[in-house]
Amino acid sequence: MASERVLIVGGVAAGTSAAAKAKRTNPELDITLYQREPFISYSACGLPYFIGGWVPDHNALIARTPDQFARDGITVRTEHEVLDVDAAAGRITVRDLSSGKTFHDHYDHLVLATGAGVRCPPLPGIDLKGVFRLRSMGDGLAIKQYLAERKPASAVVIGAGYIGIEMAEAFLELGIKTTVIDMLDQVLGTVDVEMAALIETAMREAGIQIHLGAKLAHLDGDAAGQVTCACSTGAELAGEIVLLATGVTPHNELARAAGVALGPREAMLIDGLGRTNVARIYGAGDCCTVNHRVLDQPVYIPLGTTANKQGRTLGAFLGGVERPFAGVVGSSVTKFGALQIASTGMSETMARRAGYAVRSQRIESTDHAGYYPNARPMHVKLVSDAASGKLLGGQIVGYEEVAKRVDILAVALATGMTVEELAWSDLTYAPPVSSVWDPVLVAAQALAKSR
Amino acid sequence: MASERVLIVGGVAAGTSAAAKAKRTNPELDITLYQREPFISYSACGLPYFIGGWVPDHNALIARTPDQFARDGITVRTEHEVLDVDAAAGRITVRDLSSGKTFHDHYDHLVLATGAGVRCPPLPGIDLKGVFRLRSMGDGLAIKQYLAERKPASAVVIGAGYIGIEMAEAFLELGIKTTVIDMLDQVLGTVDVEMAALIETAMREAGIQIHLGAKLAHLDGDAAGQVTCACSTGAELAGEIVLLATGVTPHNELARAAGVALGPREAMLIDGLGRTNVARIYGAGDCCTVNHRVLDQPVYIPLGTTANKQGRTLGAFLGGVERPFAGVVGSSVTKFGALQIASTGMSETMARRAGYAVRSQRIESTDHAGYYPNARPMHVKLVSDAASGKLLGGQIVGYEEVAKRVDILAVALATGMTVEELAWSDLTYAPPVSSVWDPVLVAAQALAKSR
Repeated sequence: MASERVLIVGGVAAGTSAAAKAKRTNPELDITLYQREPFISYSACGLPYFIGGWVPDHNALIARTPDQFARDGITVRTEHEVLDVDAAAGRITVRDLSSGKTFHDHYDHLVLATGAGVRCPPLPGIDLKGVFRLRSMGDGLAIKQYLAERKPASAVVIGAGYIGIEMAEAFLELGIKTTVIDMLDQVLGTVDVEMAALIETAMREAGIQIHLGAKLAHLDGDAAGQVTCACSTGAELAGEIVLLATGVTPHNELARAAGVALGPREAMLIDGLGRTNVARIYGAGDCCTVNHRVLDQPVYIPLGTTANKQGRTLGAFLGGVERPFAGVVGSSVTKFGALQIASTGMSETMARRAGYAVRSQRIESTDHAGYYPNARPMHVKLVSDAASGKLLGGQIVGYEEVAKRVDILAVALATGMTVEELAWSDLTYAPPVSSVWDPVLVAAQALAKSR
Repeated sequence: MASERVLIVGGVAAGTSAAAKAKRTNPELDITLYQREPFISYSACGLPYFIGGWVPDHNALIARTPDQFARDGITVRTEHEVLDVDAAAGRITVRDLSSGKTFHDHYDHLVLATGAGVRCPPLPGIDLKGVFRLRSMGDGLAIKQYLAERKPASAVVIGAGYIGIEMAEAFLELGIKTTVIDMLDQVLGTVDVEMAALIETAMREAGIQIHLGAKLAHLDGDAAGQVTCACSTGAELAGEIVLLATGVTPHNELARAAGVALGPREAMLIDGLGRTNVARIYGAGDCCTVNHRVLDQPVYIPLGTTANKQGRTLGAFLGGVERPFAGVVGSSVTKFGALQIASTGMSETMARRAGYAVRSQRIESTDHAGYYPNARPMHVKLVSDAASGKLLGGQIVGYEEVAKRVDILAVALATGMTVEELAWSDLTYAPPVSSVWDPVLVAAQALAKSR
């Protein structure tokens, strides 16, 4: 019996995870991975830190090279674009971007790990010189090169989400006068407004100009290479470089061609193993939905962590091990300067929108005992379901041990813990790392008491 | 109806927590707290950092003063020693240490929050000048004064547990040549030997001499104030100051007098509300046992966090709110220099001793993405029950976000999570705070795979 042929489209996080895990699980599999870019298996999340100069060499972001995959018996074809899928025939159409030639390949199993692109309406001027997006290594290198060649003195970042905040920090680090605009009335729409305000304040204090409630209408370039961003508010903000960080949208063209059912935000609807509604076609990563364990429904929250988990789960399944991925609870973190902001589960706004009767508490404490040197403020907000007392989400802003405190909440969410149970958790304490009542417990005690 | 009279013996963490919570819950209660020391409501865990000079003023360790309690309607009598309990009569005998006078007081409810003392056999020389213990504020002030007056050039710390390690760091900070001895073959017996070795190495590299497998036999003083510690190994280690950090033993004298049943290590056996076997007598804090949620049995693990929780739970109960404390999972943390060590649940050694068929994995990763500046090694060890796959415990040694990563495990333990479930948790990720697979997940994945 011939070995089964697995084709994988896309080779950043999910595609390479799936390939590696499938081969480790069943070495008999015949695996080929197609990637449009010259690069595979890199940390896209590291790109803002490469651009800002904290990571000097882009090669440091690369986890494994095509040669390393080849040594494990996995064929990687970079600079190959998959143009079409014929699900009935089990066949894809591929273009070799270096030669321009087009050919067919046949699969027993097809993995679509095509990722996502920047979501941006086709506004006038969107393709001007000096206007960039940041999704791929190629994007990162192009920005880096433009910065080196043009040495822009000013930047405009459209969108104050994770990438927008991280790139604003990067531009600032490079001495570039930076303006951030967002159509919402707050930065970081994934957290509640009063928590986002803490980051906004830090950004403003660092010298970033922020324009909120401002929707990008069109962009105009001039001969000197300056781009003016005209907003719905009438404001015109000019920068010598503009970054579109307006959120992402799944690359679903191949999925559509193959008849794959789409879910929220038109991402590929997959089950816990990565299966779609189409036989022998699977998905993983930023082009796919994922189960939200608190909402108990598929959502579109494309993140590197999830892409890795979906890829690994799917790889194991293709190799013969069926172990579904239960899904996410919505955890994420970023930082601006020394200030970290992390969240998991639902914000109060999200929870109300989802129909919950919500209770919430916000407390201010310190990251460790107040009397021990360098104690700094820590803000914790917890959200619970008034009916069941269950934790629905949490957000923390602070300077130390922020992200992993949110991870305490992430595990509590995954296990359906009530706030009352959480409030009495046996968390570690020593004066240099916590207060005797950890800020998480202080918040949970306050919220439990408010019932 | 006269208001009920609550007497509380002991006023550090548990006693003051119980008093404050009881009064808040039921303002009608008539509460008097007796404390032998002049100080109440202070952070004993902060004392090593006061001695080492990181916390310049001991008053910074005090959370609330007797006056503050008085304003809330709670009577605090410092420098009063409770000598005896007559449970049948509902009466205690008290000595006013300032006047020397003895009197009786009557209670409707009696809380014994008498704490613990240093556990040390009555070895020859144990009471020599220059030989100290560190439990109370008075102990801390006495050490601080001795250091100021005598300026010792050398110190010997007996015992390499939490206090021993923290005090070794404090002595080192003060420029004192420091030797640590312990009767075990490792430092920090609460964690497994290979994890403890990481701290031991850091201590040695900082210049601390460590003698393991050495039991203190007797101490000899000389006219110059030098104390020589003679060990079972024949070694003789001299210091101008000696600290006995040989673990603690509950102050159970009053409990015994009252007929209270004792549990492990002769600590007062209490239920989740703080009740003893004797009507109207309760316990909380370092003189008491606590339920271990993983072992599902009472244990003696005296810690400030637990004392606060037991005190608050008991206070609520005395005020009329019955909400039992489920117990601990065995979480703790300390640091030496920049290196933190935290653990929760059972070590591999403890789990084997408890009769489990154990699996374990130890991994080395980095505290955040390797390519981002200042990534440093992080060691994670997880222990699971081979039969059920459930997590039994975890230990982490590293430099950043160590304690709160252990707290992720603490919540997983409290909820009975399997290692497989833990391995796919939705933990936050950004290159400055984690790897895409957090070290906790790397360890859990490795352990889950080993089944």
